Amino acid sequence: MALAKKPVTGMKDITPAEMQIREYVMDQIKETYRGFGFSQIETPCVEHIENLTSKQGGDNEKLIFKILKRGDKLNLETASGENDLVDSGLRYDLTLPLSRYYANNAANLPSPFKALQMGSVWRADRPQKGRFRQFVQCDIDILGDPTSLAEIELILATTAALSKICPDNAFTVRINDREILKGMALYCGFPEDSMDQVFITLDKMDKIGLEGVEKELLESGYQKECVDKYLDMLKNVTRNADGVRALGQKLADVMPLEVSRNLAHIMDTVTEVSEADFGLEFDPTLVRGMSYYTGTIFEVSMEGFGGSVAGGGRYDKMIGKFTGMETPACGFSIGFERIVTILMDNGFKVPGAGEKKAYLFEKGVDSITLAGVIKEAMEERKKGAHVLVAQMNKNKKFQKEQLGNEGYTEFKEFYKESLKK
Amino acid sequence: MALAKKPVTGMKDITPAEMQIREYVMDQIKETYRGFGFSQIETPCVEHIENLTSKQGGDNEKLIFKILKRGDKLNLETASGENDLVDSGLRYDLTLPLSRYYANNAANLPSPFKALQMGSVWRADRPQKGRFRQFVQCDIDILGDPTSLAEIELILATTAALSKICPDNAFTVRINDREILKGMALYCGFPEDSMDQVFITLDKMDKIGLEGVEKELLESGYQKECVDKYLDMLKNVTRNADGVRALGQKLADVMPLEVSRNLAHIMDTVTEVSEADFGLEFDPTLVRGMSYYTGTIFEVSMEGFGGSVAGGGRYDKMIGKFTGMETPACGFSIGFERIVTILMDNGFKVPGAGEKKAYLFEKGVDSITLAGVIKEAMEERKKGAHVLVAQMNKNKKFQKEQLGNEGYTEFKEFYKESLKK
Repeated sequence: MALAKKPVTGMKDITPAEMQIREYVMDQIKETYRGFGFSQIETPCVEHIENLTSKQGGDNEKLIFKILKRGDKLNLETASGENDLVDSGLRYDLTLPLSRYYANNAANLPSPFKALQMGSVWRADRPQKGRFRQFVQCDIDILGDPTSLAEIELILATTAALSKICPDNAFTVRINDREILKGMALYCGFPEDSMDQVFITLDKMDKIGLEGVEKELLESGYQKECVDKYLDMLKNVTRNADGVRALGQKLADVMPLEVSRNLAHIMDTVTEVSEADFGLEFDPTLVRGMSYYTGTIFEVSMEGFGGSVAGGGRYDKMIGKFTGMETPACGFSIGFERIVTILMDNGFKVPGAGEKKAYLFEKGVDSITLAGVIKEAMEERKKGAHVLVAQMNKNKKFQKEQLGNEGYTEFKEFYKESLKK
Repeated sequence: MALAKKPVTGMKDITPAEMQIREYVMDQIKETYRGFGFSQIETPCVEHIENLTSKQGGDNEKLIFKILKRGDKLNLETASGENDLVDSGLRYDLTLPLSRYYANNAANLPSPFKALQMGSVWRADRPQKGRFRQFVQCDIDILGDPTSLAEIELILATTAALSKICPDNAFTVRINDREILKGMALYCGFPEDSMDQVFITLDKMDKIGLEGVEKELLESGYQKECVDKYLDMLKNVTRNADGVRALGQKLADVMPLEVSRNLAHIMDTVTEVSEADFGLEFDPTLVRGMSYYTGTIFEVSMEGFGGSVAGGGRYDKMIGKFTGMETPACGFSIGFERIVTILMDNGFKVPGAGEKKAYLFEKGVDSITLAGVIKEAMEERKKGAHVLVAQMNKNKKFQKEQLGNEGYTEFKEFYKESLKK
């Protein structure tokens, strides 16, 4: 009756070594976010299928692990399709369940509500190196605050957490606003109904570069004059708060001044009060994929991490669609798995883990001696040391090597005749 | 497009207040277990359906949340039953995935391997008060150690964790051995093939008392002489290590002396070396439901907690059935949800949570004032305080009350004209 030993396709067993790093990173994040007044909450991993397929998750809705109905509710004979067979599924992100949570619990929550969530989500993506079908997301969201204080606090908290985890890696927060994105395109003459297509092209900047974007926009049939003006603007805008203000003046005919003022204010305040050391840059090419963003958007890139390690933005319409009551919302998500992977690849050692000692006793020691060994271990444990008590293996050298890999640095051996070091 | 606001049937949203207690209890448990040399690991929540339905989970296998196949693999037209529709399911415990994990990773793990797992499991049980379909299990297991050191360390670690979480509640560890259970029944004249039935009756002791057990055994058709002898023995055996040794002598014809010596040794050593204060009692009526136990079994009951708060035992045959290679194993599981529920009911306050301050500013303060408020908050956060910055609501009194419920004890107010306390 040998059974399947490997985990299910696309998911993984987590080793003690990786687990130590995961726990360390989680603890740093939690500690930092609590300092900023975020309250940790949790939603069930299983969510109503109607909620999961309500068109708020974009392409993620194609990747849902669906759960079979149970008992009398499952009727294979009358089922005409998948929808008759399932009643729920595994959540594909933490934002949709947060909306449901808020709708369900708002009466008992402070307003605004600052939520911290860390939990697994599931997507039946095509398996590929470094991407798994179960992975942890780590989100902070502020619900019910329409002011820029939300953005400011989210950026301060996320950058504080990142500097704590990776104190030696320089990083940059890039920031933009969906309204500015639109304002710039309108100003340059792109028609109103082409916005989505223009932004999908612009979003490829990372991969195809400015020239690639130019080529694709021309191929899509936009006027050369309009494309040239747009690219010039993207290249030449000053990427700081003053640049944002100047841009706002320029766009005054197509965008309310309030939008640029708001973004510049966020940048000014973050720069003034932040304790962490990072670059803050207005990035007029930042798009961010999810269509639910309505205002500010941000992304963090870190030296040596290739690609972004955190991202988020304002999504003022999403919760209202869910609950029928409009609720301003803004969130920031740390790329937990990405950070863990890079730390692992770099041989990161968790700092300040308790001293690890292994007490090895010879096979056949009498019970009084063994009790003495355990007693000594208990005393060390009381002082905070991590002490493993184990029988000496035949191949002691290999055993010590293995324990060394687990972080044991101190060994003490106990033999039959007497307690000798 | 209003969607379902409640969580799916039988699962729950976790509030910030409960989450604080959950995190506290988890941290205490993790810290203690790490001190004993347990390594935390994790398996995917999704497990192969073949593994989940391999008859190792007893009745839990009837309660599996099953996951629909995806893509081309799902063919409704040719499917003749549930088994054709699903390829996986949510784990119903952490022991089965641990066996798979060990089979998959043993080459890279120390031997013996001391595993710590904390994670959610799912059972589609009939919903009832205080029992949920998603709940956290918290297990330690020692794989590859056939000696009583495993039992001793498991009991020491679990009792250390419980005393840390509930320092004021007295608790008792009751211990027995499946072999002794059998030896006693044989000694009293129950036929060999009646063991399971006798133990199922004995296991009801909690509910029906000794008299109820007597009645049920007689009704099942066992001889009065045999039942009387058995009940006398259960009543009169001395419930300490000496009692176990004496019982061993008595059962010498039906059970190897080694069994009682081993149990007495575990009791002696735990009593001698433990740092925690608890009762340790041989309980000849302890059965524990799961059929996979092969030797020592134990359970912890705590004053004011009604029922057990932890339990476990030795299961030397289970991993072998899975992997084809016999591996001795012994585990102890803390009733995490039960402990959290009781702590909540008793109004437990998490000790040593950072000082919580709320900075409330009047609506419309200028941006320079607001930056000052945030800056002050950042300085307090650096010192370890938890600081919430929020706009003052119209109903300030209610806002403060609500924040009070969230644990905020200090309030500072900032107004338009100036910074005044």
